Amino acid sequence: MNPTEPIAGAAQATRQRIRRGEITGHTSGLAPGCVQGNVVILPSALAPDFLRFCQANPKPCPLLAVSEPGDAALPSLGADLDIRSDVPRYRVFRQGELVEEPTDIGHLWRGDLVSFVLGCSFSFEWALLEDGLRLRHQDCGVNVPMYRTGIQTVAAGRFHGPLVVSMRPFSPADAIRAIQITTRFPGVHGAPVHIGKPELIGIRELARPDWGDAVPVQADELPLFWACGVTPQAVIAEAKPDFCITHAPGSMLITDLNNSRLAVL
Amino acid sequence: MNPTEPIAGAAQATRQRIRRGEITGHTSGLAPGCVQGNVVILPSALAPDFLRFCQANPKPCPLLAVSEPGDAALPSLGADLDIRSDVPRYRVFRQGELVEEPTDIGHLWRGDLVSFVLGCSFSFEWALLEDGLRLRHQDCGVNVPMYRTGIQTVAAGRFHGPLVVSMRPFSPADAIRAIQITTRFPGVHGAPVHIGKPELIGIRELARPDWGDAVPVQADELPLFWACGVTPQAVIAEAKPDFCITHAPGSMLITDLNNSRLAVL
Repeated sequence: MNPTEPIAGAAQATRQRIRRGEITGHTSGLAPGCVQGNVVILPSALAPDFLRFCQANPKPCPLLAVSEPGDAALPSLGADLDIRSDVPRYRVFRQGELVEEPTDIGHLWRGDLVSFVLGCSFSFEWALLEDGLRLRHQDCGVNVPMYRTGIQTVAAGRFHGPLVVSMRPFSPADAIRAIQITTRFPGVHGAPVHIGKPELIGIRELARPDWGDAVPVQADELPLFWACGVTPQAVIAEAKPDFCITHAPGSMLITDLNNSRLAVL
Repeated sequence: MNPTEPIAGAAQATRQRIRRGEITGHTSGLAPGCVQGNVVILPSALAPDFLRFCQANPKPCPLLAVSEPGDAALPSLGADLDIRSDVPRYRVFRQGELVEEPTDIGHLWRGDLVSFVLGCSFSFEWALLEDGLRLRHQDCGVNVPMYRTGIQTVAAGRFHGPLVVSMRPFSPADAIRAIQITTRFPGVHGAPVHIGKPELIGIRELARPDWGDAVPVQADELPLFWACGVTPQAVIAEAKPDFCITHAPGSMLITDLNNSRLAVL
């Protein structure tokens, strides 16, 4: 995964605007074609368990990079990248409680913090759109619907809890194509974990998502369910670490990586 | 697609037994791992249209080999292969009517006959079984159910008609896996053409297949539909060529090719 030149330039320019405080909201649509990541920053005492959790649950927790303790750099995602300033908005948790939503965490930085960057569905959604498929939640102008399932993740130390999935409806032929396309992107959630029959994975009502917004599913469509990056967030919320920083929802880390470079074939 | 030694040896030995008339029935389970093919033999006047039909409809008509006119050899499928003797049982049609089911067609051979060998579902079923999936029709000990759909093939000259599909039910997770596996085998029907909701492709009752036998589909399963090699057979029956020879159902041509060599990745 080597950064590619023109696209990496767009990512760097966007990160600089974020660093200067010119962008403090959602990153959807910024630096098109660049991989955006979920961010989790934990004290190093918790890092090994969380790393093991990600390793055991690669579909909801596809790790793109992990920092050295206390090091704000993530050179594999961008030479200039500084995790203390390059996310538009952060969320700071103490004992599991949200205490602050700053646009910079320089004042909170500590020598024992480890940063984790996880792949996000923006990358595979980019691949689906490139292929000509349509995304219902985009057409409706809302957030993708997400659901807590009856599927348990593999526990690691304090980290355990149910798998959260996002749902996108497709016609049967497009559903087959969407499975093929996302299979090529194991680093950003990969293939769906389920298709049709939401009741089999403990989802009672598609119209009532646990996060995001409901979208219509037509009679000639099947709902496809992908492992979702909200899973580690929910697991961390449940674990209530003394201290934790994440990105604010929709306000992601923009990296130099090209989405298409995440395709394994 | 180079024949591989041990497996090719098993194919040759089986073809020799067929040639000697020792095997005159179904080929399922013979020469394990070897590609088996559907056979269509047509007068050269019709060959260009049929070739064009296959090219335009690669999912139901995945061509493995085409002979020179009048040449009984198909060297890419087996050095010693003789299409006049190496199929256990043939069907001979005149003006669209079945007139004979011989075990050898040497007495019918003509200098204008062109042989077509098309990939068959045995190869992708082998890949599904190798991955640990189960096939309902095998568990039930019956033929796979096949259905005429409302999907039209692309016409070429006299050849036109509806797509025929075979159906195999799977749990949602196994359905996703089956799509991934069969996507790797475009030369033997490839990925399914449809999933769930049979009514959308003109199938009224799963319990009443047009060919083969019905199999149960459980409430927690989805039916998957693959383009089927019966499609060209039905299209040829409809076109009523003056003269045509095919394999008898289930009585296939065994080739030296290794099933796994048909995987494109």
